Amino acid sequence: MKEKIILVSNDDSVYAPGIRALVEAVQPFGKVVVVAPAEPQSAMSSALTIRTPLRLKEVSVFNDLENVTAYACYGTPVDCVKLALDKVLDEKPDLCVSGINHGSNSSVNVIYSGTIAAAMEAAMSGIPSIGFSHLSFDHKADLTAAKAIVQTIIKKIDTQGMPPCHLLNVNVPDGPLTKIKGLKICRQAQANWVEAFEERTDPIGRKYYWLMGEFVNHDNAADTDEYALENNYVSVCPIQFDLTAHKDKKWLEDTWDLTV
Amino acid sequence: MKEKIILVSNDDSVYAPGIRALVEAVQPFGKVVVVAPAEPQSAMSSALTIRTPLRLKEVSVFNDLENVTAYACYGTPVDCVKLALDKVLDEKPDLCVSGINHGSNSSVNVIYSGTIAAAMEAAMSGIPSIGFSHLSFDHKADLTAAKAIVQTIIKKIDTQGMPPCHLLNVNVPDGPLTKIKGLKICRQAQANWVEAFEERTDPIGRKYYWLMGEFVNHDNAADTDEYALENNYVSVCPIQFDLTAHKDKKWLEDTWDLTV
Repeated sequence: MKEKIILVSNDDSVYAPGIRALVEAVQPFGKVVVVAPAEPQSAMSSALTIRTPLRLKEVSVFNDLENVTAYACYGTPVDCVKLALDKVLDEKPDLCVSGINHGSNSSVNVIYSGTIAAAMEAAMSGIPSIGFSHLSFDHKADLTAAKAIVQTIIKKIDTQGMPPCHLLNVNVPDGPLTKIKGLKICRQAQANWVEAFEERTDPIGRKYYWLMGEFVNHDNAADTDEYALENNYVSVCPIQFDLTAHKDKKWLEDTWDLTV
Repeated sequence: MKEKIILVSNDDSVYAPGIRALVEAVQPFGKVVVVAPAEPQSAMSSALTIRTPLRLKEVSVFNDLENVTAYACYGTPVDCVKLALDKVLDEKPDLCVSGINHGSNSSVNVIYSGTIAAAMEAAMSGIPSIGFSHLSFDHKADLTAAKAIVQTIIKKIDTQGMPPCHLLNVNVPDGPLTKIKGLKICRQAQANWVEAFEERTDPIGRKYYWLMGEFVNHDNAADTDEYALENNYVSVCPIQFDLTAHKDKKWLEDTWDLTV
């Protein structure tokens, strides 16, 4: 059987503990190529670098692991995946994994997440892709359970298949594996962030603002990712990149006259 | 009748001709508040500024127009909308418009677009929102037809209603209004970008890469935005921010065992 080629990226940078855990988890499954940001790129969504050129640098951070090569890219998570597919890899990878993100990417956070954007970018090229996130923002959090979940998910894809969308958003609760009740297939909870910027004044009297906000969940149904995580399940949410609101398309066709 | 409050943003910056055209088009409909990037922010998607603080500066660029106030924000398009809703506006706006973008935001470009991200951010707070784009990338393009289309769309929303998703992606072909055949309600065409980075070498011998790529449309069905635009229709695509692939959720529930 041909060895799997696995592309790994993230948004917390190639030096984050989360990507180390992810590489260790996927390394038994094939040849691993890491292309990840040189600097933290959280909340970069699907941003692209178009006004400055990109650079790639081979890094030694995974040299202790066999069959792993790694590059730092001075760009966004999506830049990393685009460069990996065009310039680093000789052939299309069999799998792309992104993460393990330090902090949840459930509900609408999927919109802002660089971790999910990296996986989405690969999925848009037809590569089965998974974004993994761990609920703790603490870079010292114990990722043992999350590593086991990564391996569980990859084995399920191998033996039970990947859905046609090619993209999964997987969030893992904090705590030991024994506390995790199982996987739950979820939809994205309907929620939003309500902003409350913190206003400060700099030493020369000019105002500046730090982004702060409160996550407001309007949707506690049992099939949401938020519900799953609150109840100690791993949330598995299949993700699409067709943003068309198909029901609203019908609504518009039935309602609007289309003259200009 | 209470005066409408209209929030205007974009990704090409507060100084772009496209936002000037948009402000002129919406100004007859109410009180206009512009919060737009101080610098070009194309392809920034829903990126947020979280590592540096944000600044706002009142700008005089629309001082010749009545009932318009304008701020430049040193951040991304989504930062602009978040700051507008929390710090600039005293009440929730009745409408948010973003654009007019210099260049198409049809098909998968919606994923990368800062213009659409700004409108989406407002829609996520329940504000009826529209992203407008014009097919020409030329900042000197004649936007007369696009301005008329902006007014047509706002009148249709007023008289015929907004779909429940609250968010429309409107692309306007280049050329005069007389050449435009009408509006078409569309879905996002299934397409992707195939990367072909341009590799160069800097004066001290190190490689760098410019993002280049080819847009590959796999989907020429008559209800896609690409088809509408090729045939001189304005494409109107309703957009959602629930990224759940609902059919694939069912597939996973029916297929996977969920033990860990």
